[in-house]
Amino acid sequence: MEHIKGYDYGKSGLESSPISMEDLSLLKQTVLWSEEDQANLQKAGEILKDQVNDILDLRYGFVGGHAHLVRYFGKNDNPNMEYLSAVRARFGQWILDICQKPYDQSWLDYQHEIAKRHHKSKKNQTDGVDAVPNIHYRYMVAFIVPITMTIKSFLAKKGNSQEEVENMYNAWFKAVTLTVITWTYPYINEGEF
Amino acid sequence: MEHIKGYDYGKSGLESSPISMEDLSLLKQTVLWSEEDQANLQKAGEILKDQVNDILDLRYGFVGGHAHLVRYFGKNDNPNMEYLSAVRARFGQWILDICQKPYDQSWLDYQHEIAKRHHKSKKNQTDGVDAVPNIHYRYMVAFIVPITMTIKSFLAKKGNSQEEVENMYNAWFKAVTLTVITWTYPYINEGEF
Ligand code: HEM
Ligand code: HEM
Repeated sequence: MEHIKGYDYGKSGLESSPISMEDLSLLKQTVLWSEEDQANLQKAGEILKDQVNDILDLRYGFVGGHAHLVRYFGKNDNPNMEYLSAVRARFGQWILDICQKPYDQSWLDYQHEIAKRHHKSKKNQTDGVDAVPNIHYRYMVAFIVPITMTIKSFLAKKGNSQEEVENMYNAWFKAVTLTVITWTYPYINEGEF
Repeated sequence: MEHIKGYDYGKSGLESSPISMEDLSLLKQTVLWSEEDQANLQKAGEILKDQVNDILDLRYGFVGGHAHLVRYFGKNDNPNMEYLSAVRARFGQWILDICQKPYDQSWLDYQHEIAKRHHKSKKNQTDGVDAVPNIHYRYMVAFIVPITMTIKSFLAKKGNSQEEVENMYNAWFKAVTLTVITWTYPYINEGEF
């Protein structure tokens, strides 16, 4: 795999996640997670892996088309193109990772790193940019919808049956929701997460 | 409509929502909200209204089957049956409201009231109970998944075409996500919502 700038999955310097494997297990039960979801995500990864660029085009079109979203990629409403493209590469890798990686301690630790990168605790540092300092919490949860809904047509593009597509779609929905929960940790009042 | 204890929608004493109608409009754009979603929710309301009890049975079965969830309805792992049944009546009304009510200032204000009722700022007060003081944030967002996914079979029960069911389902998903965003306001660090 080519080197992706700022992609630090599994690196030793990462802070440990404040979320334990036991917390994660209860969260999985709460989002109705089952063994089949894991298999369905693996299958989704196979289907999505050569469509990553198209998914990114769609996503960047959506963000770019909304001033209240694209502003986080720059300052004074001027998007920073280098920042956008550095994040794009890591986003592409994330699509594979959410499907393929086991949700173990390394996964939790990198989710916590990404959490901090959206939050003011570490936003902008990875790419050394001068941009809006914090992504507002509300849009982190709101993005569950476009990130989930827009994946379905890509899952349906390789001739799988409708039932297979539905199963992959539901697994993706659960995985994205779990992910967003881990990414919102830094925004939550102490002791209330 | 029969009187529901503690159901204060539209009452004059409610605090104004910290979320403005303009904030709501940007959030709607972010969850891909359109005019059709509103119509589809109205239609969903017609389909769900005589199934409310079955939906509540399913939901209470799910919560009751998980110690890490049912604990919020009581103290020291003893669920309080009166509390459970008072909330059940308001939950039934909510299913109708999310489908039928316009998302205006009154809607925002009552969402803020429900937010506080899940959070330690006002949990237990409406029913005057002695129970766990705060629902942990993580489960508020996690519940988007079961509250969304389990509605589909109810939407499909009245002979609508698959496409109609999908459209109602997607509108419900967006509405539940919007709702949860408004309900998590009290948990968020100042200035970061
Ligand atoms: C479901 C919600 C979201 C997903 C799945 C997502 C995905 C990602 C991914 C995979 C990365 C790169 C992580 C890494 O460094 O390895 C990233 C970074 C970033 N995302 Fe998001 N994102 C979400 C919400 C948002 C929202 C709501 C915004 C605001 C428009 C946003 C703006 C950004 C920015 C500015 C960065 C770069 C942060 C930095 O300075 O390192 N993201 N996102
Ligand atoms: C999508 C997320 C959720 C939805 C749609 C939902 C729905 C509702 C509704 C409609 C009410 C009554 C509101 C009113 O007073 O009019 C309520 C209250 C309550 N819910 Fe939730 N809920 C959610 C998350 C949770 C979670 C994660 C728990 C924890 C297991 C929980 C436990 C409770 C409790 C204990 C009350 C009573 C609060 C009080 O003391 O007033 N809810 N919920």
